[in-house]
Amino acid sequence: MTAGLDVGFIGLGSMGREMAAQLVKAGHRVRVWNRSPEPVAALVALGAQAAATVAEAMAADVVVSMLADDAAVTSRLLDEQLLAGASATVHVNMATVSPELARRAAELHQRHGIGYVAAPVLGRNDVAAAGNLSILAAGESSLLDRVAPLFEAMGRQTYRLGERPEVANVAKVSANFVLISAIEALSEATALAEANGLAADQLVELLAGTLFPGPVYAGYGALIAERRYDPAAFRLVLGLKDVKLALDAGTEARVPLPIASVLRDALLEGIAHGDGERDVAALAETSRRRGPAGGAR
Amino acid sequence: MTAGLDVGFIGLGSMGREMAAQLVKAGHRVRVWNRSPEPVAALVALGAQAAATVAEAMAADVVVSMLADDAAVTSRLLDEQLLAGASATVHVNMATVSPELARRAAELHQRHGIGYVAAPVLGRNDVAAAGNLSILAAGESSLLDRVAPLFEAMGRQTYRLGERPEVANVAKVSANFVLISAIEALSEATALAEANGLAADQLVELLAGTLFPGPVYAGYGALIAERRYDPAAFRLVLGLKDVKLALDAGTEARVPLPIASVLRDALLEGIAHGDGERDVAALAETSRRRGPAGGAR
Amino acid sequence: MTAGLDVGFIGLGSMGREMAAQLVKAGHRVRVWNRSPEPVAALVALGAQAAATVAEAMAADVVVSMLADDAAVTSRLLDEQLLAGASATVHVNMATVSPELARRAAELHQRHGIGYVAAPVLGRNDVAAAGNLSILAAGESSLLDRVAPLFEAMGRQTYRLGERPEVANVAKVSANFVLISAIEALSEATALAEANGLAADQLVELLAGTLFPGPVYAGYGALIAERRYDPAAFRLVLGLKDVKLALDAGTEARVPLPIASVLRDALLEGIAHGDGERDVAALAETSRRRGPAGGAR
Amino acid sequence: MTAGLDVGFIGLGSMGREMAAQLVKAGHRVRVWNRSPEPVAALVALGAQAAATVAEAMAADVVVSMLADDAAVTSRLLDEQLLAGASATVHVNMATVSPELARRAAELHQRHGIGYVAAPVLGRNDVAAAGNLSILAAGESSLLDRVAPLFEAMGRQTYRLGERPEVANVAKVSANFVLISAIEALSEATALAEANGLAADQLVELLAGTLFPGPVYAGYGALIAERRYDPAAFRLVLGLKDVKLALDAGTEARVPLPIASVLRDALLEGIAHGDGERDVAALAETSRRRGPAGGAR
Repeated sequence: MTAGLDVGFIGLGSMGREMAAQLVKAGHRVRVWNRSPEPVAALVALGAQAAATVAEAMAADVVVSMLADDAAVTSRLLDEQLLAGASATVHVNMATVSPELARRAAELHQRHGIGYVAAPVLGRNDVAAAGNLSILAAGESSLLDRVAPLFEAMGRQTYRLGERPEVANVAKVSANFVLISAIEALSEATALAEANGLAADQLVELLAGTLFPGPVYAGYGALIAERRYDPAAFRLVLGLKDVKLALDAGTEARVPLPIASVLRDALLEGIAHGDGERDVAALAETSRRRGPAGGAR
Repeated sequence: MTAGLDVGFIGLGSMGREMAAQLVKAGHRVRVWNRSPEPVAALVALGAQAAATVAEAMAADVVVSMLADDAAVTSRLLDEQLLAGASATVHVNMATVSPELARRAAELHQRHGIGYVAAPVLGRNDVAAAGNLSILAAGESSLLDRVAPLFEAMGRQTYRLGERPEVANVAKVSANFVLISAIEALSEATALAEANGLAADQLVELLAGTLFPGPVYAGYGALIAERRYDPAAFRLVLGLKDVKLALDAGTEARVPLPIASVLRDALLEGIAHGDGERDVAALAETSRRRGPAGGAR
Repeated sequence: MTAGLDVGFIGLGSMGREMAAQLVKAGHRVRVWNRSPEPVAALVALGAQAAATVAEAMAADVVVSMLADDAAVTSRLLDEQLLAGASATVHVNMATVSPELARRAAELHQRHGIGYVAAPVLGRNDVAAAGNLSILAAGESSLLDRVAPLFEAMGRQTYRLGERPEVANVAKVSANFVLISAIEALSEATALAEANGLAADQLVELLAGTLFPGPVYAGYGALIAERRYDPAAFRLVLGLKDVKLALDAGTEARVPLPIASVLRDALLEGIAHGDGERDVAALAETSRRRGPAGGAR
Repeated sequence: MTAGLDVGFIGLGSMGREMAAQLVKAGHRVRVWNRSPEPVAALVALGAQAAATVAEAMAADVVVSMLADDAAVTSRLLDEQLLAGASATVHVNMATVSPELARRAAELHQRHGIGYVAAPVLGRNDVAAAGNLSILAAGESSLLDRVAPLFEAMGRQTYRLGERPEVANVAKVSANFVLISAIEALSEATALAEANGLAADQLVELLAGTLFPGPVYAGYGALIAERRYDPAAFRLVLGLKDVKLALDAGTEARVPLPIASVLRDALLEGIAHGDGERDVAALAETSRRRGPAGGAR
């Protein structure tokens, strides 16, 4: 990573701004674009340049994007005219989007002579701010080599998952599905425990101390035990977005996912009951509400 | 742990024999009983005494039992005449049984002046052989103090969960439910990944390397990726036993457990397809069979 | 049906008393036994004789029983001593019990030289009072012929389902499972409709007027639309009993029943929220509660 | 219905061609459009006129459309330019589409001064050929009055469901969801029955003869009992389309639909195993395959 790369960065949400900042700090020349101006100013203060339009950002050598979802990527970036005019030679899409979008995007980029890399990440914004993301990357090997310095700046480790970009999105969708499954199982177990006189913190302590070391069970378990869901580190509505990505990928590939169906119903119920903007750990409230604790209210 | 306790040990299955051996090694005087004679001989070779009958084992000061399930405990131990004649002052039931059985057993023992401690364990037989079990214990505080030397001999850590014995069984049932949920989520995610060209070992590596450190995801994930289910460390039929304990506890407490219902159906399907005696990781085969991989056979 | 049969009738609950009354009216000689005396007196007023003990009822030529569940049948009737002393030559068990109990009972009766017929019924107490039950009967052909006059008195039609008694219980369990599935589907559809501005009575009217003629959809649909669950014609707790019979039969036969699992969870949730003694149509309240109508309360 | 109306009919699939034919026979002046020419010729032979373009069909006074799904309606009809140029004063959309599309379509038509009526139907093509459909209609009252002669020609009965078009689509989606739920319950019950020695035709006979008169249980039950799924009257893939419409409507309205989730997984599994083009009754094969009958293959 000698000279630094010429990077366009599109999408400065809570994740994107931290990731772009890491690129600036690592010495890359970064021009940033965002729908709203505030995060642009913050990045410029760190040494980035402002791009007035998406097209301007796409004039950089390498483009990294971190937009909200399939709809945002489609409307902002999957545009024939935009791609025809872009001088970028590779686009690294780091958003959590559907495998199906990745396939479409890769095909469209190829027609315009632009390489397409899918590189969704694991880790929340505090992890992004520390440059410690885990990056799930797939695309042509030479392209992955070229953008490796960017991954090094943003992440702690990169999993290279082959040449087909959508495979990285499948990995990300699968990982989030497994994560939310763990939270739901913990929620149901908590409801069962509490209805039998075992406090949630005792259950969580023994699970985290025996079978399940690591941050997921201890961390979400603590939120569940303390019923502390605000502010949300991972909003419940985004959990539903992720579960729907899994279900849609399952539909496309003809793979039934009964656990994902259970998650969908529980998340919807949480949203119906006002927990959509709280942490996804609030799934535990749905489990509690369904049992005698809910009946007693 | 000076003088050692006078212990009767009932039930020398694959777990019980290892646990009893630890007690002998720790210097306790142990008289053992088992339905079949072979494991008794092995323990006697280590220094234990053989009890010819359950009643003889119940003549020790402290009785530890490790039987297969509710039915075995009920038929062997929950007998008015047996308890009336027993000189034991405390019975530590370490089997995975229902909270409902624990309640009945505690009440029955109390009528006969015998203390009742529930102390199910986490860990398989290799863990038991190393004296490294995690012990989930509940019962009167003074009783837990008395049998603590036994727990120290058999386990690496003891979670004390209060005075009501059944709470320890709830904890054990909940823990196994969360465990099997994790395996099923991993199974479904694997089927989704494989149908999209992501190999199971890649998925497992990234899950275990990021969100889920510890033995469960890496260990069961490896079995799933390699489709290696024999010999079973934790048989699928026992998984169904545990899930039914969770569902029954949920029924009793009026707590719906939709994930447990999914597990039940998947485990039954596995048994119907001949996987009952294989490792519970064979849940992955049910997930695979339901999707295009199964259709292609 | 010339001379009438000599019948012992055991169990005069809300169904049994109506059925026994039909037998008396049809000219059979009936001696009745019940745990509590009131219904016995009512039957005696109609012309029945009172049996002081179960054994006395078992001294009749044909015994009909209509007890609450597996536990009641087991404790009252599946007794070696009782059966050894009985002079009855055939026992017709009309209760809704498990196929597994039917197998055990048939084997036990055979050992004592008593024929065993399983003949559960479809229809509620008003239908029983009109002698219009549908009878699902299985057992040896000659036995079914012998008790046919009793079926004619109690029912409008008899389905003969072969020689193995438990098959009749499987039929009954299956029918109730399909029934409760219909009610749950109607409940979920109602919640969906109402959340979108379609009134339940409109939905029910069009379903009953097109795809689903007959009493089930129109009848339960009306209860759901009017939210009228008291007094219960079919109590929600009995719905759970029936669904558990289906799940248990599925477990025994290794047949996953995902719809039954959904029913179980919904029924449990209804009981947790105080609807256990209301009509099973109150499943609709659980569906409503889970959605925005529940969140808005 | 004196003079007959001037009607444009768009979409002559297996349903549309029968419906358009009824309009011609009833004396309406019908100009028809279809993507492929064959069905147009057949209608012209009956007395209809051919419209060369969708716009030509939209020049009629009243437009009726019967396209395949949301995507077809969106691409063919929800076009600003097309609607701006249309002289039609009312558009009756009889396809099974999402409530969400109905909302969008109604708003778009209103902007162009065209009335929008949603009128999906119940009944398959043989029912359509006999003019016996059940029509679920919603829209402005005056519009419903105007097109009533068309409904009379095509249907046996019309349910008027208020002024908001999307409510008719909710009704249709709900009805199909309840229908497919019944088929799945029947499938699971059949698997349970067969595994216990009760033949499917016996189970179906008693269900149809007692609780469930009418064509659904008897008809689908017969297909299931005879394992006769070809040719399909209602293809399994279309069942999945309908269930997804229900799930999507549930997502939008925050109404969990656990039975619909079970249906989704079962339908996907059927498609994965090659049953997509068979009748939806082939759900029974998925239930059978999951149990011991599947394991024994």
